[in-house]
Amino acid sequence: MATTEQLSTRIESTLGRALSRAGKPGAPPKLAEAMRYAVFPGGARVRPSLCLAVASSCGDDQPALADAAGAAIELLHCASLVHDDLPCFDDAPTRRGKPSVHRAYGEPLAVLAGDALIVLAFETLAERILDHPARAAHLMRIVAGSVGMPFGIVAGQAWESEDDAILADYQRAKTGSLFAAATEAGAVAAGGDSQLWRVVGERLGEAYQVADDIQDVTGDEAVLGKPTGVDATYARPNAVAQHGLAGATRHLKQLVTDAVDAVPPCAGQAMLQQMILQQSQRFEPPPNAPAAGRSAAHPA
Amino acid sequence: MATTEQLSTRIESTLGRALSRAGKPGAPPKLAEAMRYAVFPGGARVRPSLCLAVASSCGDDQPALADAAGAAIELLHCASLVHDDLPCFDDAPTRRGKPSVHRAYGEPLAVLAGDALIVLAFETLAERILDHPARAAHLMRIVAGSVGMPFGIVAGQAWESEDDAILADYQRAKTGSLFAAATEAGAVAAGGDSQLWRVVGERLGEAYQVADDIQDVTGDEAVLGKPTGVDATYARPNAVAQHGLAGATRHLKQLVTDAVDAVPPCAGQAMLQQMILQQSQRFEPPPNAPAAGRSAAHPA
Repeated sequence: MATTEQLSTRIESTLGRALSRAGKPGAPPKLAEAMRYAVFPGGARVRPSLCLAVASSCGDDQPALADAAGAAIELLHCASLVHDDLPCFDDAPTRRGKPSVHRAYGEPLAVLAGDALIVLAFETLAERILDHPARAAHLMRIVAGSVGMPFGIVAGQAWESEDDAILADYQRAKTGSLFAAATEAGAVAAGGDSQLWRVVGERLGEAYQVADDIQDVTGDEAVLGKPTGVDATYARPNAVAQHGLAGATRHLKQLVTDAVDAVPPCAGQAMLQQMILQQSQRFEPPPNAPAAGRSAAHPA
Repeated sequence: MATTEQLSTRIESTLGRALSRAGKPGAPPKLAEAMRYAVFPGGARVRPSLCLAVASSCGDDQPALADAAGAAIELLHCASLVHDDLPCFDDAPTRRGKPSVHRAYGEPLAVLAGDALIVLAFETLAERILDHPARAAHLMRIVAGSVGMPFGIVAGQAWESEDDAILADYQRAKTGSLFAAATEAGAVAAGGDSQLWRVVGERLGEAYQVADDIQDVTGDEAVLGKPTGVDATYARPNAVAQHGLAGATRHLKQLVTDAVDAVPPCAGQAMLQQMILQQSQRFEPPPNAPAAGRSAAHPA
């Protein structure tokens, strides 16, 4: 089994190569810089880490394909953050503790950086088609499905423009889809069972969305590196608003337990369960902490 | 050789199937509608027509792959129009004779519609990977390269945010890249020579950009279905501003001639040359027409 450090090295170097290709001589320099700014330094890289950990647990016989899938998922995640922060959505002044892309580079370059990162994600994955065409085709389907219509993150974001959004559907598309893609893609890249592993990502995705909702209500902006209270401002569905803080916290714990229980028997089962529990500790609020000004790490 | 009507039927039905998949039950209805609004009714579908005409000239032994490539290119073109029309770029109130997407559906759904169309383009192409993995991998590279960084349409749009943009580089990326991709992809889908055919698209792309520049200066908004005078408003590079109307018109004619001459010997050579000449007539200003208020069809 690969160590967390080994996985991290693979992720950063795959992302670095992709961004270098996009920004090579002849590219418009500001857009190249804005793209790099959106991807580095990263957050916890939770999705690609999950993807590669699952691939590793399934034997990882096509590591370059797994790397490409993990990088594609992270690039799409970064693209979605850039576009979600735009003035017409959250108008977020900060992200990952620094000015958001549109604050740093202006709105036109933020729109284009998001677009270019989406293209780069598919380009990165497509480069490995000939490594294993059948798996690559499946990976393309998984990754595109997790970000596009009808059930991917753009669909999740679009539910905010609908009058009758159902909390579960909204969250499943907005956050869950990319987590489900991460575990499923890791399995597919290594020839594992996609459906068994998909469930792990689905539960984790729900857990992260609930954690994000809790942080939006109780978190400390300085620690999170992004604004809080956004859901209330935009009258958006939020698990704390719907179930109360105690209810949302109970739900979060249950989802993490479900994710751990869903890890299928494999060489890396214990390692993966450990990794999930460790990462989930980063975003659970400390017990009996006050309902406002509470600090918690940004889950993504 | 396929007729223009046969090619048109293939294009519209491939686009229709892709949009139906994106908007199937469970999708957020407004975003699904905004995507469809951005794609139908289309403009002249010049790029996918070129793609399929070239594939047809090269034998078209993988028609589903050629259809997917043509549709992907058109979806990316539509996505770029939606994002280029946004308030932070051209703030265009109209497009193809109706309100632009952000005017009809609001800015959030316009951003998301563009994003979702980019994803749908790659998804549509990826569906045909197993038809012929080597050609599909090549097509992915061509299509991603034509729209992404460092030399695709997002790069072209990004040059508008740079202080020192070179007109030729800017136009090559902003318009030429998708035309070059159209002819190159048509050839690759059918096993033809990609480089020979790429040159045809490059010349045509330059011609279309010059035509667009001329229309921006001399065209009639009501006939074009979109605003004019945009380049002057935003102090953008424009061939008429740089070479004068007569110079730009001469340059346009030369580029069309070059494109016609570049068509390689093949079964459909005469048909393709005819098609290029016919389409180019649509955007050449009538001789001795006044420099303002002149009407011309929208080239794309």
